[in-house]
Amino acid sequence: MASTNHPIRVAILGASGYTGAELVRLLTRHAGASIVALTADRKAGQSLGAVFPHLAAVVDDRALPPLTAADEVDWDGVDVAFFGLPHGTTHAVAAQAPERVKLIDLSPDFRFTDPETYSLWYGIPHGAPALQREAVYGLTELARAEIVGARLVACPGCYPTASLLPLVPLAEAGLIAIDEIIIDAKSGVSGAGRGLKEASLYAEVAEGVHAYGVAAHRHAPEIEQAISRAGGRPVTVNFTPHLMPINRGILASIYVRLNDGVEVEDLRARLASVYADEPFVRVLGEGQVPATRHVRGSNHALIGVFKDRLPRRAILMSVIDNLVKGASGQAVQNMNLMCGLEETVGLGQQPLFP
Amino acid sequence: MASTNHPIRVAILGASGYTGAELVRLLTRHAGASIVALTADRKAGQSLGAVFPHLAAVVDDRALPPLTAADEVDWDGVDVAFFGLPHGTTHAVAAQAPERVKLIDLSPDFRFTDPETYSLWYGIPHGAPALQREAVYGLTELARAEIVGARLVACPGCYPTASLLPLVPLAEAGLIAIDEIIIDAKSGVSGAGRGLKEASLYAEVAEGVHAYGVAAHRHAPEIEQAISRAGGRPVTVNFTPHLMPINRGILASIYVRLNDGVEVEDLRARLASVYADEPFVRVLGEGQVPATRHVRGSNHALIGVFKDRLPRRAILMSVIDNLVKGASGQAVQNMNLMCGLEETVGLGQQPLFP
Amino acid sequence: MASTNHPIRVAILGASGYTGAELVRLLTRHAGASIVALTADRKAGQSLGAVFPHLAAVVDDRALPPLTAADEVDWDGVDVAFFGLPHGTTHAVAAQAPERVKLIDLSPDFRFTDPETYSLWYGIPHGAPALQREAVYGLTELARAEIVGARLVACPGCYPTASLLPLVPLAEAGLIAIDEIIIDAKSGVSGAGRGLKEASLYAEVAEGVHAYGVAAHRHAPEIEQAISRAGGRPVTVNFTPHLMPINRGILASIYVRLNDGVEVEDLRARLASVYADEPFVRVLGEGQVPATRHVRGSNHALIGVFKDRLPRRAILMSVIDNLVKGASGQAVQNMNLMCGLEETVGLGQQPLFP
Amino acid sequence: MASTNHPIRVAILGASGYTGAELVRLLTRHAGASIVALTADRKAGQSLGAVFPHLAAVVDDRALPPLTAADEVDWDGVDVAFFGLPHGTTHAVAAQAPERVKLIDLSPDFRFTDPETYSLWYGIPHGAPALQREAVYGLTELARAEIVGARLVACPGCYPTASLLPLVPLAEAGLIAIDEIIIDAKSGVSGAGRGLKEASLYAEVAEGVHAYGVAAHRHAPEIEQAISRAGGRPVTVNFTPHLMPINRGILASIYVRLNDGVEVEDLRARLASVYADEPFVRVLGEGQVPATRHVRGSNHALIGVFKDRLPRRAILMSVIDNLVKGASGQAVQNMNLMCGLEETVGLGQQPLFP
Repeated sequence: MASTNHPIRVAILGASGYTGAELVRLLTRHAGASIVALTADRKAGQSLGAVFPHLAAVVDDRALPPLTAADEVDWDGVDVAFFGLPHGTTHAVAAQAPERVKLIDLSPDFRFTDPETYSLWYGIPHGAPALQREAVYGLTELARAEIVGARLVACPGCYPTASLLPLVPLAEAGLIAIDEIIIDAKSGVSGAGRGLKEASLYAEVAEGVHAYGVAAHRHAPEIEQAISRAGGRPVTVNFTPHLMPINRGILASIYVRLNDGVEVEDLRARLASVYADEPFVRVLGEGQVPATRHVRGSNHALIGVFKDRLPRRAILMSVIDNLVKGASGQAVQNMNLMCGLEETVGLGQQPLFP
Repeated sequence: MASTNHPIRVAILGASGYTGAELVRLLTRHAGASIVALTADRKAGQSLGAVFPHLAAVVDDRALPPLTAADEVDWDGVDVAFFGLPHGTTHAVAAQAPERVKLIDLSPDFRFTDPETYSLWYGIPHGAPALQREAVYGLTELARAEIVGARLVACPGCYPTASLLPLVPLAEAGLIAIDEIIIDAKSGVSGAGRGLKEASLYAEVAEGVHAYGVAAHRHAPEIEQAISRAGGRPVTVNFTPHLMPINRGILASIYVRLNDGVEVEDLRARLASVYADEPFVRVLGEGQVPATRHVRGSNHALIGVFKDRLPRRAILMSVIDNLVKGASGQAVQNMNLMCGLEETVGLGQQPLFP
Repeated sequence: MASTNHPIRVAILGASGYTGAELVRLLTRHAGASIVALTADRKAGQSLGAVFPHLAAVVDDRALPPLTAADEVDWDGVDVAFFGLPHGTTHAVAAQAPERVKLIDLSPDFRFTDPETYSLWYGIPHGAPALQREAVYGLTELARAEIVGARLVACPGCYPTASLLPLVPLAEAGLIAIDEIIIDAKSGVSGAGRGLKEASLYAEVAEGVHAYGVAAHRHAPEIEQAISRAGGRPVTVNFTPHLMPINRGILASIYVRLNDGVEVEDLRARLASVYADEPFVRVLGEGQVPATRHVRGSNHALIGVFKDRLPRRAILMSVIDNLVKGASGQAVQNMNLMCGLEETVGLGQQPLFP
Repeated sequence: MASTNHPIRVAILGASGYTGAELVRLLTRHAGASIVALTADRKAGQSLGAVFPHLAAVVDDRALPPLTAADEVDWDGVDVAFFGLPHGTTHAVAAQAPERVKLIDLSPDFRFTDPETYSLWYGIPHGAPALQREAVYGLTELARAEIVGARLVACPGCYPTASLLPLVPLAEAGLIAIDEIIIDAKSGVSGAGRGLKEASLYAEVAEGVHAYGVAAHRHAPEIEQAISRAGGRPVTVNFTPHLMPINRGILASIYVRLNDGVEVEDLRARLASVYADEPFVRVLGEGQVPATRHVRGSNHALIGVFKDRLPRRAILMSVIDNLVKGASGQAVQNMNLMCGLEETVGLGQQPLFP
């Protein structure tokens, strides 16, 4: 597709959520892509600027298509489709897309190799097991080769992205005890989406913090699948998410035990080596502490490595913007790879601070 | 003192910080106490209402004394002195107080049984080792008997209060592996005080989260001292504090390994039993998640107990308001005990939500 | 009623909203009242602690009644009923209460002397015009005599409370041009209630400000009714509310033209005189700027008076906590008056800062 | 300069403040500019990434120069200098720059045509009255022709930018009464800079709002200068700024009286006409309310026009990001004009929401 001379024609299904709006933000400034379809079943007929006034300038500039129902998409004019639909609804829609259309899913519907695991955690049968077999789990830096040739990429969840970037290389190299991993994660509210829930109201979130989904969050099996694969044996992990009164950002504070003969500096060296040439992942120097505000609005991930006071243990700190590297940015990064473009195109946004 | 018929005459040394203001908030509505002296060296001569306009109504109502320098306190008219001074400065001032004055310190200056530990972590020699020997570590619920008869009570730090309320009873009972405790703590900004630091500016804190003092925070040895004493042998702990964009509140998410033969419900049962009759500590039922906003402005602590996905492990969640139970509220609670008053006097404030 | 020796038996209808929770917060510590009924139609059967976990400690302490449907209230055991129901629903319920029960309404249903005005702005007919005739508009400091003998008090809206406290005494005294009043008001989010609205989501509110209801907010006619009455002729006002990313607090910045011969200091003098002995209203000295955080959680109002750069004009600044003086606190203040209690009982909460 | 084939060589003097960081954010992605010098006297010797970790990725990518003292700048290699220095310090430094270097000042030092006005409001004599005479007040959309040929541009303050964009065209057209303008402005905290002030601490700002500088803010005379010029006679204005608990954003709510024969729609039509082809200023349709979050991180301004309830009056609402259109973005926009580049280069950042 890189050899064609038209821009990539992009459809965004589920454009009325925060990840949809973020895709529009990124793709309207993308040198090699053009948005040709936007869907939002309940807001069909409206302009995107009506749903997201902050994008109104964009609508004018670029004449974005109006929102339509998902089944009104004219697939003939689409090269790549992003799916930002609620879980359980992507299977059917994705199965309808012509074979030549590349599919990039931001929902959990294609993240699990084993449809049974999906079914167990999401409470519904997997609706497209055949498609599942060709799906690639798209944590870009760790699956680049598979993503390049893929037709269907399942983008990781925001928490798994933040957690796996530091953990997978360490698990693969056998540096840490993979059956004792404790992930204390903190997320901004946009991760819960734009749906109406009492727990997402300003007055319920501001000026307070709390855990949720303790020992029962659906990102736990997703993390476990990847760690198990990296470590070569099935494991469970502690994954404990907390809600923060911020819009964007995930911080994963990860507590690990070192394997015999391994020192903390070996962890940092391994990660520094793996990510040495990565444009979006930085391993910080000794003593540097990553903060979510250092990556707000950008596709970067920052990773810190610390010695624990407890002997033979280390602490990993990983931060991303949940809507960018944790969702829409990584999705665009994957599109670039799938379509033969430079991986960084359209992702040059720098962090916005303060 | 309870038998006298005058209210307890209270001096607050270091009244221009947030803990000082919080002491005033609590003590001006305290039925058995009267504030007779307020000090703030750099603001001497000002009214407290000028320094804290939210207390201006109180100043009018109760005719609070003006701020003076610490060395202007007329000790003859003082029964109890609260010290909210910077660490390293309390030793000298406390040593000057007459023997009959009860001393309640909110700084770390008297928290360590071993002056060497204090000196090691705070970088200065202990200035009053003799006084140290009579100091009681005032985590009220766990040291009530000692507090009643004490002349000098060192109030615990905010993080230690949140961490030790769930941990000490479990360590004492031998239910958890005390040398593997991981405390991922989240705190509001008021814990850093009213001093001018770039890291405390609104624009540096809002819309972001980050860890700080990783493996090096001064509350770690304080927690270790108490766990070591409870468990009968010296241990270190993982204590990892994080700064949250909230004014008030601490959440300690604590990851523990169960000792052999112990189940998660044994932990809950032990804590429920220990705190059954406590007015300020509540152990939540299964599945209930404590949130800092549930205790904002009140002297309560809430504790949740959860099964981990990792086998043989549990998660403890503990929340307090760092300025109340984590500082000034606990200090007043201790004053009540030391002076023979009902322990709850002046601490009836309910949480303010939203 | 003050002469009886039982506490006032209180019913709270509509206890699952923020104003309901705030009534519970205040009344559980009220020395002369006891909550005997709590209603919330959609949450009937639940405990209040399940709906508002921050009140759980209270539930235990005081054995609050469970939530019931509004029509399950046993009126025989009720002396005073607070109505925190959605507008349009209070008329019918209030009409069912026995004559001997005192009624305190926090909704707009009884705020308008003229049922037509109500009908015009709320889009429904007034359902209890007979009751309306005995309703007193309960801005406590300015209607104390009428409130004392009233059976039905309609508590003012939050914005009107903040606006009218400074404006009415000036309009009555003929000091300002009442047909040119501009009220730029800023409110926290709790004023919008706990209902599920996209506009109340954390991510839609945090890190931004905007106006709403420009020239069309329902508190405008309420303010106009009071100013017109005070000034002796019908007027309209500019009332422009803005949503702030805070939980609690209203700041009304009011721009007024001085009448001939009047100076700014005359305004301050008038207000200082009117409110000289008021426990909850303070007129600040020259140059002192009121802030919402100075009254957070308390029943206080602070008023500042400033000279404008524009000749012959002044600026009034007024702050309250919208849930306390702007709703539940003023309701309790009115209850105290109606029942012959000291007006300040149960309202001693000091501001919570930070 | 546009005809040369090297990128514009830019020096940023005062790079350790928020406007300096924002200049770096914008200029590192600017296709026609290259940063060759960064100064920060008190942080000389540090890397910018050490001072602003969120820019650390940029430092690596582009090899930014280290921070130096202002007097170490090698002017031979500089084409354009941005001054983000404290007021009162720019005069001397700017006077040292060679004649061929274009100067863009973000401080107030060159904003006043009359050095006496500067001196009166800033309390110090004007240090470079000769330079002042060639300074252009750089509100880009309203002074484009002058900016193109200017050597020295004084960028407007953030509040004046938000206020003057709607007001100047209306004053010029004689549509509004210019001696009765009331500007109630709301700003985020970043406008106060990164300096250490108690009033900028998180705990002093969060969860509250208040006015400041009432009738005495230094942006008042700046606004008055522009309105007076546009209206052809000297006027004063009401300008009342308020501090909001947000990082970025200004909302100016402006209350104006219509001149005889003018209707509200005439105001909207005038503004729509003036800004019809502007890339960064949008006049919203009837009923659309601008919000600061719609422009966060972008160089856009949004303007709404509303009918007042008061007869013959209108309300203007204007929003910008104070650090972009209100400071660094407008500065870059001016640089583009001064250097013959397309005005929008480097300013394509879209708003970041949520």
